[in-house]
Amino acid sequence: MKLSALGEFGFIERIRRAAGAGHGLTLGIGDDCAAAAIPSGELLLTSTDLLIESVHFRRDWTDLHRLGRKSVAVNVSDIAAMGGTPRHLYLGLGLPEGISVEDLDAFIGGFLAAAADSETVLAGGDTCRSPGPLLIAVTVQGSVSPEEMVRRTGARPGEDLYVSGSLGDSALALKRLLAGEVPDPFLAERHHNPTARYRLGRALAQEGLATAMIDLSDGLLADLGHLLESSNVGALIELGALPLSERFRAAMEQEADLIDLALGGGEDYELLFTASPKRAGEVEALSRRLGLPLQRVGVVTGEARNLTLLDGSGKSYPCRRTGFNHFASGE
Amino acid sequence: MKLSALGEFGFIERIRRAAGAGHGLTLGIGDDCAAAAIPSGELLLTSTDLLIESVHFRRDWTDLHRLGRKSVAVNVSDIAAMGGTPRHLYLGLGLPEGISVEDLDAFIGGFLAAAADSETVLAGGDTCRSPGPLLIAVTVQGSVSPEEMVRRTGARPGEDLYVSGSLGDSALALKRLLAGEVPDPFLAERHHNPTARYRLGRALAQEGLATAMIDLSDGLLADLGHLLESSNVGALIELGALPLSERFRAAMEQEADLIDLALGGGEDYELLFTASPKRAGEVEALSRRLGLPLQRVGVVTGEARNLTLLDGSGKSYPCRRTGFNHFASGE
Repeated sequence: MKLSALGEFGFIERIRRAAGAGHGLTLGIGDDCAAAAIPSGELLLTSTDLLIESVHFRRDWTDLHRLGRKSVAVNVSDIAAMGGTPRHLYLGLGLPEGISVEDLDAFIGGFLAAAADSETVLAGGDTCRSPGPLLIAVTVQGSVSPEEMVRRTGARPGEDLYVSGSLGDSALALKRLLAGEVPDPFLAERHHNPTARYRLGRALAQEGLATAMIDLSDGLLADLGHLLESSNVGALIELGALPLSERFRAAMEQEADLIDLALGGGEDYELLFTASPKRAGEVEALSRRLGLPLQRVGVVTGEARNLTLLDGSGKSYPCRRTGFNHFASGE
Repeated sequence: MKLSALGEFGFIERIRRAAGAGHGLTLGIGDDCAAAAIPSGELLLTSTDLLIESVHFRRDWTDLHRLGRKSVAVNVSDIAAMGGTPRHLYLGLGLPEGISVEDLDAFIGGFLAAAADSETVLAGGDTCRSPGPLLIAVTVQGSVSPEEMVRRTGARPGEDLYVSGSLGDSALALKRLLAGEVPDPFLAERHHNPTARYRLGRALAQEGLATAMIDLSDGLLADLGHLLESSNVGALIELGALPLSERFRAAMEQEADLIDLALGGGEDYELLFTASPKRAGEVEALSRRLGLPLQRVGVVTGEARNLTLLDGSGKSYPCRRTGFNHFASGE
């Protein structure tokens, strides 16, 4: 079916019926605003992200169901990085002419499935046509008590640096796609369908384990740079400690400098956090409980904004990639 | 200066310094999320809007300062329509290659000026490049006490229908622009720089005057249609009572059927509300206090979803335009 036959209000009505209710939502889709209650005493957390066709994704590389899922995950990841509970999603869609209702249903299906996974609800949005690319604008709201909120500013010298999951998988899949190759399915899934670590973020905040935290969207070095700058500290990272997946390691046997993708490739959507070395046992216990690797990758130092990478032989390794510049052409 | 020289983080830092703080904002730009306190006992209101180049605006028709202002106004208008207090804004920007830093400064300047006018604060956002059109995604948050919130559902038969300001000015300016003409400056200003009626919305809610309310973005007939559907009522509108500006009336002397633009043209960003006839005096007093015309344009009837338009001689007038279809080509 062509979208123009359904019309804007027909499409919105379709989404409204599928979206459901939840999480303190007083009014969902269908009035001038959504209205929701935030738990008494908690702070409202908000983040917004754009996903633009041919900048952030290509429709010939991903199905729209996974694109819908990813649109939610990259936003929920920001709530996770504050230690918050994700609650409400808002979706702006700019739709190119010729996009089919079937494709949109797949997108909305993926979006709502990921919303359900992260216990969030689609509460509102806006739709219109786009003169070219498919445009996705997502805003996520969550909440957290002021005492539990984890900022980027709390890292102190002597603390340990941890990374969840594994690094570089997404960037390696993108490298393959850009080269016209078919990436390994595991790597492709990590790129097209990342997992927001909101249970981890919430647990770290609740147990007071993380002193500072950020999500890895622009690459380890760039995001660590933000954290170091905000906390006015430095860091020492051991290359040999970086958490790498089996598939990533296999690829590195052919191309050793793929390590730069783990350092700067971006779109990992893992959490980077700092914790007191006294609490290493608790971090390990949390990792076991969640079934999610939490790898110590280095240590916070007192040299403000100074980042040192050490290779396996203890020599300093030069920082080659420092993350995305979203204004540059190409990725 | 070219934007690529400044870079994403340079540009964000520029905005961050200009944005300032306010309205319960605990954390503004510069962490994974913004964090804010919503007044205890109040509901969080949220709305989101996309403005896409060549769909919603053309850069050769408007300067970027006014585009920045309009991006705020069309969003704040949705908070006004619920009777809420606008609080925080989030700005997603997709920037075409070649856009200058001077143009962006003008846009941000207009955005922040309109934010200050409506006592809101820019709390966060996202920027990236766009492969074509300039993309603007704005999310606004406000709050309102549950008792004061005005929905679309509260209109009852026998109540009066009111419209603020004047209708059709914006649509008439657009008509002139589309015809390659230079619109009258008053009409152009109404199109490029609409005023969000948030003081009116707030006052109507606080005094309990409005029983139902909606903002006029898609045209009187379309938006009235939404209100009637939500309230399960009908309405009788007197064409002769529609509030029209002097410039609009002057144009109508040449082209009588311009009245259809006042009925269905869209982008008025005025408020449409219903009120008990017993409170007509209070509505009039509020109009005087705010210095803003509040015109009674008709009455709510019991015939569900039935909308009748009466011309000057009391005859039924056919509804020709029923508002935008944002998926259709052209406006």
